[in-house]
Amino acid sequence: MSKVAVIMGSTSDLPVMQDAIDILKGFDIEVEVDIVSAHRTPEKMYDFGKNAHERGISVIIAGAGGAAHLPGMVASLSPLPVIGVPVKSSNSIDGWDSVLSILQMPGGVPVATVALNGAKNAGILAAQIIGSSDKCVQDKVLVYKEGLKTKVIEGAQNIKK
Amino acid sequence: MSKVAVIMGSTSDLPVMQDAIDILKGFDIEVEVDIVSAHRTPEKMYDFGKNAHERGISVIIAGAGGAAHLPGMVASLSPLPVIGVPVKSSNSIDGWDSVLSILQMPGGVPVATVALNGAKNAGILAAQIIGSSDKCVQDKVLVYKEGLKTKVIEGAQNIKK
Amino acid sequence: MSKVAVIMGSTSDLPVMQDAIDILKGFDIEVEVDIVSAHRTPEKMYDFGKNAHERGISVIIAGAGGAAHLPGMVASLSPLPVIGVPVKSSNSIDGWDSVLSILQMPGGVPVATVALNGAKNAGILAAQIIGSSDKCVQDKVLVYKEGLKTKVIEGAQNIKK
Amino acid sequence: MSKVAVIMGSTSDLPVMQDAIDILKGFDIEVEVDIVSAHRTPEKMYDFGKNAHERGISVIIAGAGGAAHLPGMVASLSPLPVIGVPVKSSNSIDGWDSVLSILQMPGGVPVATVALNGAKNAGILAAQIIGSSDKCVQDKVLVYKEGLKTKVIEGAQNIKK
Amino acid sequence: MSKVAVIMGSTSDLPVMQDAIDILKGFDIEVEVDIVSAHRTPEKMYDFGKNAHERGISVIIAGAGGAAHLPGMVASLSPLPVIGVPVKSSNSIDGWDSVLSILQMPGGVPVATVALNGAKNAGILAAQIIGSSDKCVQDKVLVYKEGLKTKVIEGAQNIKK
Amino acid sequence: MSKVAVIMGSTSDLPVMQDAIDILKGFDIEVEVDIVSAHRTPEKMYDFGKNAHERGISVIIAGAGGAAHLPGMVASLSPLPVIGVPVKSSNSIDGWDSVLSILQMPGGVPVATVALNGAKNAGILAAQIIGSSDKCVQDKVLVYKEGLKTKVIEGAQNIKK
Amino acid sequence: MSKVAVIMGSTSDLPVMQDAIDILKGFDIEVEVDIVSAHRTPEKMYDFGKNAHERGISVIIAGAGGAAHLPGMVASLSPLPVIGVPVKSSNSIDGWDSVLSILQMPGGVPVATVALNGAKNAGILAAQIIGSSDKCVQDKVLVYKEGLKTKVIEGAQNIKK
Amino acid sequence: MSKVAVIMGSTSDLPVMQDAIDILKGFDIEVEVDIVSAHRTPEKMYDFGKNAHERGISVIIAGAGGAAHLPGMVASLSPLPVIGVPVKSSNSIDGWDSVLSILQMPGGVPVATVALNGAKNAGILAAQIIGSSDKCVQDKVLVYKEGLKTKVIEGAQNIKK
Repeated sequence: MSKVAVIMGSTSDLPVMQDAIDILKGFDIEVEVDIVSAHRTPEKMYDFGKNAHERGISVIIAGAGGAAHLPGMVASLSPLPVIGVPVKSSNSIDGWDSVLSILQMPGGVPVATVALNGAKNAGILAAQIIGSSDKCVQDKVLVYKEGLKTKVIEGAQNIKK
Repeated sequence: MSKVAVIMGSTSDLPVMQDAIDILKGFDIEVEVDIVSAHRTPEKMYDFGKNAHERGISVIIAGAGGAAHLPGMVASLSPLPVIGVPVKSSNSIDGWDSVLSILQMPGGVPVATVALNGAKNAGILAAQIIGSSDKCVQDKVLVYKEGLKTKVIEGAQNIKK
Repeated sequence: MSKVAVIMGSTSDLPVMQDAIDILKGFDIEVEVDIVSAHRTPEKMYDFGKNAHERGISVIIAGAGGAAHLPGMVASLSPLPVIGVPVKSSNSIDGWDSVLSILQMPGGVPVATVALNGAKNAGILAAQIIGSSDKCVQDKVLVYKEGLKTKVIEGAQNIKK
Repeated sequence: MSKVAVIMGSTSDLPVMQDAIDILKGFDIEVEVDIVSAHRTPEKMYDFGKNAHERGISVIIAGAGGAAHLPGMVASLSPLPVIGVPVKSSNSIDGWDSVLSILQMPGGVPVATVALNGAKNAGILAAQIIGSSDKCVQDKVLVYKEGLKTKVIEGAQNIKK
Repeated sequence: MSKVAVIMGSTSDLPVMQDAIDILKGFDIEVEVDIVSAHRTPEKMYDFGKNAHERGISVIIAGAGGAAHLPGMVASLSPLPVIGVPVKSSNSIDGWDSVLSILQMPGGVPVATVALNGAKNAGILAAQIIGSSDKCVQDKVLVYKEGLKTKVIEGAQNIKK
Repeated sequence: MSKVAVIMGSTSDLPVMQDAIDILKGFDIEVEVDIVSAHRTPEKMYDFGKNAHERGISVIIAGAGGAAHLPGMVASLSPLPVIGVPVKSSNSIDGWDSVLSILQMPGGVPVATVALNGAKNAGILAAQIIGSSDKCVQDKVLVYKEGLKTKVIEGAQNIKK
Repeated sequence: MSKVAVIMGSTSDLPVMQDAIDILKGFDIEVEVDIVSAHRTPEKMYDFGKNAHERGISVIIAGAGGAAHLPGMVASLSPLPVIGVPVKSSNSIDGWDSVLSILQMPGGVPVATVALNGAKNAGILAAQIIGSSDKCVQDKVLVYKEGLKTKVIEGAQNIKK
Repeated sequence: MSKVAVIMGSTSDLPVMQDAIDILKGFDIEVEVDIVSAHRTPEKMYDFGKNAHERGISVIIAGAGGAAHLPGMVASLSPLPVIGVPVKSSNSIDGWDSVLSILQMPGGVPVATVALNGAKNAGILAAQIIGSSDKCVQDKVLVYKEGLKTKVIEGAQNIKK
């Protein structure tokens, strides 16, 4: 079965990144969580990136703030699709630093970037990636999307009262 | 076999988006190319988005410029992973408009955004997504990454002469 | 008689969008309010956009935040003038995302964009549009503008005391 | 019959603003063109703004660059809907100055802002505004939108050859 | 004797603009304060701008937020030096709107722009302008600058304790 | 008689700054031109700033690009009004660096900032400052403003042909 | 023995700059702290910059906010490496002003710029500079880096519980 | 004797980075040049970073564009001072991406960032760092600074002719 690794540069990123973990669990997808810092534990990052695809992991979600190098560095080390979550850290310049550090990767090494603090969407995207070859997961994504619709329709009904 | 759809809002986006097509062909991945405009052919977009996953497509790559709604709208319609390529169109405000219109999707509907004009990386990311469940494609990704390394090492040798 | 539709992507946009509703009621213009999400209820949006002009609606006001596609998508579906209100949502990058997603529409599909969170002005603009062919409403706009002047003059008098 | 006034701050804005004139003529809408500078001919602007609605004008399109005050000042003087076109002038800071000077109007005085250099869309929006009370013009807008669709579909066919 | 007019677009700008009034009073320069709104009282603004230099006023300080047209419009009407204070209003896009609306004036109509919310500096600049032809005021400016130095030196002494 | 000093950080700024010199000569105001670099000739800058007001100079115009410290440093040294011209140098980040380095001075030390590359407006502002105590120069400013108006009116007539 | 000077434009910068002082003390490096304002005490700054390298100082750390001229001006006066800390002051435009005023120095006069409010990193960088010729300090840097790693690994263990 | 390593992510960065090499040679400082890509040769980067300080290198200059991770990653691996040069690559978003990816490093791992394309200043800064413990190099820096002054003074003389 497919597994998703959710890594982040610091425990302070966990409140944001928890959304990815929660949504993946909601899709019954196995999740592995770890703290891997590009700047403080480069060797651990190297080992993680080099080996993830051989440990049954299908997708990597990496969150980081400021000059956020973790997603791009892991993408350079792994053949897996890497989803980057720009985290708005304290002393960030309005989040622009993490967004651009993750998004603007050079040709050859993509990172699938989601919105600022968009860990929930990172989780859904990982499910969609797994679902692209696993109809059972894809069906769960379709059900999830129906649920989004239902909530909006209920909201619309409330507003009309 | 997996297939990737490469769509774009206008024929003027083709020079940028061709990079995605070329790299996917280099990975021997089947590609389907179409012009689908969110704002000028909304019905075509609707049909495309609703049915793509039932036509053997695994990944959608969508490129658009300015207020770029195509990637996000297709993502709202399809359970497939959608990769968005922000295209720097004429009269763009330095590309910020297409980047933010594609990246900053609301919770529930992710778009895997790559760099401005980063169609080449969109193609590689699509290959990585397919490779996450297809070892043969993943091996090609690993070979591609070795090729990147070789070019840098050759460049380094030239610079030392 | 003319009617204005005020739609928004989420119930969380209502506190901002209420200003449009209130000002239109102050001009005695009929208002229809609904939640229509481009990304979560694309079919509802499609139906709304295709039919609004045949249901007696003259102007559409659409508010949305982040990668705000609702105003532009409705503008692509309807021949009516569409007024877009960029809403500064949580996790927005300072509002730039919704501003640029609404403003920078490609040639052929305009959205009449107002200021960030400027729902009040969206309401006034809708009244001015109706007033451009309805002298009675235009007279109310003229009276409203006189009221603005009076408030400034009173403020000036208070400051001199 | 309805008439649209297209004004601009300087003759140097004409190459951009011509798109608005051309599209309006394509819709058989009468157009009046003038140079009105907020900063160099404030009296002319005052007279223009105060009287436009009494001279049979239904919509005002105003284009200006840099610290672009013309659209907002005319909007303060006239009860008509005013469409603002941010023009990217030389020495502009990437167009941000004209965009923000036109868009971010205070509560009470809206300007219907279109994209940077988006004069064509300003013309279409003016037609939509007139069309909201004139079925004949609205039908032309619907035909125009069909034409947009046709061009995309032809482009899509060419790309497949 | 020279007089400075301090005007602002709204009473809500007074808390910021008070700094200009206070510093000018500290230099014993006569101050006239008024609310003049470019968008809500354009006639009052016109009269103010046209006549200020004939009423004994030497310098005009104008503060406004958002799409801030007051300083530039007054500068277009008056031969006097106009100092513009960008005010960071609510719903401002981080102050960029008022800064650019005031700073980026077209050739021919300058506004002497100071920092965001920099009303204190506007007052000092007005004193320097008057001081450029009035040695008595210039001497007060020199004394003021000495006072700035003294405070820093005292701060430096405290930090060393 | 009043004299204006026009200084700049580098001879490469002269093509931009020449506009200030030309317009001042057009007003028959005496101009002194010099290269004074904050970073490369700090002693010269110190002497210039400390003594300018004792050498018959009334206003200082200082232009610089990038991290532009010349206008602010001269303002810290002189009791005269200092007009800062942000110059868009090569390797500038779109001019933002020089604009913000000149505009955002701390409380106590104002710089009268004009638009990016706005040397012409710096010259006019200097004339307005001198004119605030010299009716003869103020009359020339009024005549200049009439000239601006005439050119617009002629442009308007040409456009109508 | 090497000494580092930590200077700042105002006592209000001390809460940010204290991080630099603390980290240097942790490396047992002698620190000298002073308030030196480019704009309010230019003579003191001149003396400081001209003489620092003759007083046994090896590295200068200078922090300032807004139009932050202190780091660049000291760099123009001293042959020592100058580390600039952009401080996010009140009324800053999101910190962009201090970042760009410090970073974008012209060719010939570098400032080693660290992140917004990054005084801690300024201290570490000063230690690295001293360590580049002093193995004892370099060893402490290596130990410090090991400490960073340990903390991440402990955090990772906690997260797995 | 001290040695400086100048590394860059790609041979396409060499035209910018050559300025650093040239200026260091002008100071008679030994230079080692190499291509080291964070994303394409992560192992080479790891070895380079881990060993540089044991190979007689005193300072590392690292240039990169886009999502520029090389300077920060090398800084995470080496105890040496690392100077980062943001290179404005093609498809960069005006250089903001490389500036923020290099500047906004998290606490613990500083990069001494210079201006966009500021390789010349990186070279001078490296010389200043070496000079902080080597009077002979510091004297050369002082001579270099005198040379800057002379050029400005000559420029000033030419402008007066």
